[in-house]
Amino acid sequence: MKKPLLDGTALSDQRFPVDPWSLIEAEYSDADLGHTETLFGLGNGYLGMRANPEEGRDAHTHGTYVNGFHETWDIQHAENAFGFARTGQTIVNVPDAKLVKLYIDDEPLLVANADLDSYRRTIDFRSGVLTRELLWRTPGGRLVRVRSQRMISFVERHLGLITFEVEILDGGGAPITISSQLLNRQDGKDEYHVPDAALGEGRDPRQARKFSDRVLEPMTQRETSDGCEIVLGYRCVNSKMTLAAGIRHRMETDCEVEAVNEVDQHQAKRVYSIQAEPGKPIRLTKLVSYHSSTGVPAEELSDRCHRTLTRGLASGVDSLLAEQREWLDSFWDRADIQIDGDERTQQAVRWNLFQLAQASARTNEQGIAAKGVSAGGYDGHYFWDSEVYVVPFLAYTDPEAARKMLRFRWKMLPAARARAEEMSEKGALYPWRTINGEEASAYYAAGTAQYHINAAVAFALHRYVQATDDTEFLASEGAEILVETARMWADLGFFSTNGKRTFHIHRVTGPDEYTTVVNDNTYTNVMARFNLRFAAETVRRLIDTDPPAFEALVRATGLDESEVVRWEDAADSMFVLFDAEQGINPQDAAFLDLEPWDWEGTPPEKYPLLLHFHPLVIYRHQVLKQADVVLATFLRREDFSAKTRRANFEFYDPITTGDSSLSACVQALTAADVGFDDLALEHFNRALFLDLADAHGNTADGIHIASTGGVWACVVYGFAGMTHQGDALHFAPRMPKAWRRVSFCLQRRDTKLRVDMDPDGLEVTVVEGPEFTVGDDRGEVLLQPGATHRIDRTD
Amino acid sequence: MKKPLLDGTALSDQRFPVDPWSLIEAEYSDADLGHTETLFGLGNGYLGMRANPEEGRDAHTHGTYVNGFHETWDIQHAENAFGFARTGQTIVNVPDAKLVKLYIDDEPLLVANADLDSYRRTIDFRSGVLTRELLWRTPGGRLVRVRSQRMISFVERHLGLITFEVEILDGGGAPITISSQLLNRQDGKDEYHVPDAALGEGRDPRQARKFSDRVLEPMTQRETSDGCEIVLGYRCVNSKMTLAAGIRHRMETDCEVEAVNEVDQHQAKRVYSIQAEPGKPIRLTKLVSYHSSTGVPAEELSDRCHRTLTRGLASGVDSLLAEQREWLDSFWDRADIQIDGDERTQQAVRWNLFQLAQASARTNEQGIAAKGVSAGGYDGHYFWDSEVYVVPFLAYTDPEAARKMLRFRWKMLPAARARAEEMSEKGALYPWRTINGEEASAYYAAGTAQYHINAAVAFALHRYVQATDDTEFLASEGAEILVETARMWADLGFFSTNGKRTFHIHRVTGPDEYTTVVNDNTYTNVMARFNLRFAAETVRRLIDTDPPAFEALVRATGLDESEVVRWEDAADSMFVLFDAEQGINPQDAAFLDLEPWDWEGTPPEKYPLLLHFHPLVIYRHQVLKQADVVLATFLRREDFSAKTRRANFEFYDPITTGDSSLSACVQALTAADVGFDDLALEHFNRALFLDLADAHGNTADGIHIASTGGVWACVVYGFAGMTHQGDALHFAPRMPKAWRRVSFCLQRRDTKLRVDMDPDGLEVTVVEGPEFTVGDDRGEVLLQPGATHRIDRTD
Repeated sequence: MKKPLLDGTALSDQRFPVDPWSLIEAEYSDADLGHTETLFGLGNGYLGMRANPEEGRDAHTHGTYVNGFHETWDIQHAENAFGFARTGQTIVNVPDAKLVKLYIDDEPLLVANADLDSYRRTIDFRSGVLTRELLWRTPGGRLVRVRSQRMISFVERHLGLITFEVEILDGGGAPITISSQLLNRQDGKDEYHVPDAALGEGRDPRQARKFSDRVLEPMTQRETSDGCEIVLGYRCVNSKMTLAAGIRHRMETDCEVEAVNEVDQHQAKRVYSIQAEPGKPIRLTKLVSYHSSTGVPAEELSDRCHRTLTRGLASGVDSLLAEQREWLDSFWDRADIQIDGDERTQQAVRWNLFQLAQASARTNEQGIAAKGVSAGGYDGHYFWDSEVYVVPFLAYTDPEAARKMLRFRWKMLPAARARAEEMSEKGALYPWRTINGEEASAYYAAGTAQYHINAAVAFALHRYVQATDDTEFLASEGAEILVETARMWADLGFFSTNGKRTFHIHRVTGPDEYTTVVNDNTYTNVMARFNLRFAAETVRRLIDTDPPAFEALVRATGLDESEVVRWEDAADSMFVLFDAEQGINPQDAAFLDLEPWDWEGTPPEKYPLLLHFHPLVIYRHQVLKQADVVLATFLRREDFSAKTRRANFEFYDPITTGDSSLSACVQALTAADVGFDDLALEHFNRALFLDLADAHGNTADGIHIASTGGVWACVVYGFAGMTHQGDALHFAPRMPKAWRRVSFCLQRRDTKLRVDMDPDGLEVTVVEGPEFTVGDDRGEVLLQPGATHRIDRTD
Repeated sequence: MKKPLLDGTALSDQRFPVDPWSLIEAEYSDADLGHTETLFGLGNGYLGMRANPEEGRDAHTHGTYVNGFHETWDIQHAENAFGFARTGQTIVNVPDAKLVKLYIDDEPLLVANADLDSYRRTIDFRSGVLTRELLWRTPGGRLVRVRSQRMISFVERHLGLITFEVEILDGGGAPITISSQLLNRQDGKDEYHVPDAALGEGRDPRQARKFSDRVLEPMTQRETSDGCEIVLGYRCVNSKMTLAAGIRHRMETDCEVEAVNEVDQHQAKRVYSIQAEPGKPIRLTKLVSYHSSTGVPAEELSDRCHRTLTRGLASGVDSLLAEQREWLDSFWDRADIQIDGDERTQQAVRWNLFQLAQASARTNEQGIAAKGVSAGGYDGHYFWDSEVYVVPFLAYTDPEAARKMLRFRWKMLPAARARAEEMSEKGALYPWRTINGEEASAYYAAGTAQYHINAAVAFALHRYVQATDDTEFLASEGAEILVETARMWADLGFFSTNGKRTFHIHRVTGPDEYTTVVNDNTYTNVMARFNLRFAAETVRRLIDTDPPAFEALVRATGLDESEVVRWEDAADSMFVLFDAEQGINPQDAAFLDLEPWDWEGTPPEKYPLLLHFHPLVIYRHQVLKQADVVLATFLRREDFSAKTRRANFEFYDPITTGDSSLSACVQALTAADVGFDDLALEHFNRALFLDLADAHGNTADGIHIASTGGVWACVVYGFAGMTHQGDALHFAPRMPKAWRRVSFCLQRRDTKLRVDMDPDGLEVTVVEGPEFTVGDDRGEVLLQPGATHRIDRTD
């Protein structure tokens, strides 16, 4: 049987009350810490902190991550072969600055055991602040309010803020100790530390590698003369990446306070001893800063931490909070999706969008890892999914962030060229999973064989250029990417002279990892064809319109014009499987010959299949992890007729397990496209609550960022039916009837559009910027600034 | 370009003089120690010793191996998945008893540096003794003759013998020290030890794993009161297998001698101090014994060593040498192939046959590892190749050894049933590579996916029964193997309802590992069909002829008669690819669609391809490691027409690299079958000199035992064209014209036949036993005892 649906009903209204602008936990539980640590985590794309409580103890994983900050290790293959990935790369759980331990009458606050009169934890999507408030009846009989706030700045990439307030409400004065810490968890000593090993070394290959060797070598320890600031500097033993982490304190209270520091190489504490009195609040402000580098000495990074902390201190808490809100106001102005008619859905949609902000805001020219900066799942690696699922969202809401993602891939070209050569191919081959540019996928069948990552980069570039018309980027970095990726495809495939002359690509794995190393994977061939054509068109346009850019491209790539002819030839001859009888595109040359999967004989606990069946068993059956042909019909919609799109969906949807978190959103938006409204909403809910309901059971390992991008895509491409038609945007509204109204905005070049959907159609308004052409199959209109055009639902 | 041919001309006549009954090294060289250590190695199927010199130093690998004696370790997969092999198994390099170090005037004999007047090393195929004789001018100016003999008994499984004779011929008396040792090389200290690490950790996955953890835990150390015998006992840290190794000495000389022992947990020495005088030979006899077990305490094994050594001592050297010769006389009487017309070929053929004896003589119910007991290559694992390449030789020359090999597989059934269940299949699935029965193949694409190993076991059983008519074994152990292997096939494949109802087997790897995880691999389907039919026929015959045996089979396997119907249905519906246009069987469903390999662009140093190209690169091209369709046409010759066999050979032979050592012999015998005489001889020479000329560059890692069996098969099946036709043996002689005459014997049931080939045909004679039917396409004769029948070459 298929996996049961986990949607919003899986969230208890009592524990997680519905709210349109925040996620709230109204009752503490330690039964699902891994899940809630992720859901309430903070990040800005550079720095991420899991929602571990300030007191430290009782965690699934105490986690703090810096995008791209990783240790390397030699991959030991049980059976090695030429070209297998050599350099393991794992994001490092950096020293933990979240710790603010509280003792009253020498009794620690431990939420799991504490006698609480109230408890509430809230992450507010507009303020960007995580707040916890609780009333604690201490063992000594006092009633104490503890309120903490935590924020990672969307404005100051390297800055975090913690405020920690304690006030005795009742029961008389007491000695209070507050120990604010910065702890390197691998080598430092946490008196409450629950060793990770106790959680068991999972056999789930999607979890992060656990290090047994030392990772962080201490380089510097600094304190300011007032003792308020402590900075620790480290270097990774193998990767030689450097890091500095700093904390700075400010204590405000009318009570009597003494402070001392304890600093060693792996742990820094500032310990406040306070004679607390009822009615006199104690407020600690803790600024946090992280800087990292591939080459700068830790000393220099420590200086940078000091400057960041000093600047933060000068701004002050209120100003930092205000900046944060301002940034988010702008974000929601650009990116919000308003859903009228279902509050839980509204809350969940905003939570997903908020995660996109948290994953992308300050990556700069780093990538976006599969889990963003929310946890160490997949070792913090960058895959293809940020290009396909996240860049489109950014292109229409934050084009500059999209451009940085593309520059990240451009900077990776030298490594990708080297990898192509090792794989006996020309051009560049992007590694399937990586941080530093080297292939880190240790299982090539579901890794290196996914050559389609090359096309994903080209696709992201195309979406970006569609949204922005940034021809300057296309002519420089973009063109270089296109030349090298197209070269790889042209060399990877070959012209078959067996019958009709056709271009084939063999022994590759498409996005669906439940069949691997197949021939003429439809997704791959369709995307490769697109990549080849986009490259050829771009080069030809440069030749015609921008000779200096073309010359620069030739210098950078050694491009010969004859190559372009070959790309066009390969694209025009590309073999795309089509089964005339069923009217579908087979997933690959052999797919239709495979044995059907025994759905009846598969109980729910056998999902995901990858954890319960040998790969060979999965591969020999018609069963999908995600529907990659369906994905192709979405990404390259123009290459498939409506009839074929529908037939493909009808064929693949029932045999797709959805074991991939990338699956539900694509099934949702395609269901909407081809006319299955109920199924569209069902799949949308799967995507929407994927992490919120922990539907895959591994949200503890981090947020499925691609799916959060997919949720946006469901609304924009699925329910609003947006497509590019030349310079115009077309819409084909098909909003779920369960809702009353849906609104969202899009940035297209200099024009900002608002789309307001209702069950019968939608209205497009030019909110800002110049006139713009919108329409549908029946016609187009040139929409003037401020004007609105209505498009009715047609089916 | 293709790899160049390395045949007998690669052997220098001066260094390796031609001799029909021995392999001789007439000049010392340390340039190819790994190669010569293997070529001159000794073994009896249970115990193996590399041809390291007695003085120890200057070795590629100091190796002593006991068949099946292994350590286990947890396989760490760089990226794990369900069902991946967990238990690594590696044959252990057991304590080295070969050491007899010689010092004259305190100067050690080190052949590599010694001033030698003469040097000669000989392994005699009739005496089964390795002899080294040298004349040494010592640094002190004396001329000394050193002569050693080494033998591993074919009669006493656990016994080895070393004699070491020193005589000062000239230069006056001198103090001589002889230090006879037993050394656990991992933990003991060898003053001349060249660490293996210095040789570099090769990236060739075919080499043995090197242990970094301790392997052998010392359990006992014993000395007899006279000091002549020392026994060390050990237990493997993980596998808990136990071992005892003993040495016993006898010194004979007229010189003055003192002896002392030094014994610790990892090293035992008996050190003789001798006042040597010219003309008074010093002769040390060293008996060696090894016992191993999966459960018996090392103490008990030490007792067994003591008894073996005592018995050996009682027999005396002459008697042991005589027994050895007698055993070999019998072996050559059964198994010799005489080649008249090419002495180097004669020598090489006998060397290959001698290796078959050394690999199989005393395995008892252990398997035969890919490298026999000649080295640790492939970790000492058992594969399918002993069934397909070695058992047929045994079936016609030493049926009892063949039967033991089959019982070895029968005893492995419980492990194979468990593996099938883990792989979601019914019945039993033999592990691709193993020692203890658990799958140890860490790369499933060229490992576990080779389901065809099941058919290899059934095939070996079939060859054995054909040769022996041992219906008793077939009715018991044999039938149980057949039921469980057939069940696996019936469950692995499925009936396609896509068009004509046919039975398909998908996502498997055939013997050719240059394509993997393919659909409808012709080799696999043909062999599975055979396996299913053989099982069905065997069960039906039992039902009809041996109801008690059938009932026992039902008790052992829970067999239901309806299963037999399904096996027959699957076999009759088996889909075997055939390309009508080319008249060939495509290797698999996609093979003909692959891109041709760029032979022109592949220089010789790029072979074997597996060490120079990523698997995906190899897999996407029409290039073979071995020709598995051609192998199928040999093993199941009756299933292919002569025309198809020829067409297949013509198609596959040019695209086969021969990177597999299993390739050449099959190409040779098939070339002979389909009429390519010159190519047959060329491929035969490739197989014949595979190890002798180190054609694959890895003979240092051990002898390619399967290829030695293939050499026998080339002569019998290839050049004599032997086939079974019902109860009769047919021949189709096609001896290479380069030779004058070839003779060999065959045991068929109780009849011993001799075949004498000449360029125009052959004569078959009943040498012993009852009348027998022989013939060819033109007719058969019932040959009376002593009678001879001539069959002329027909092409």
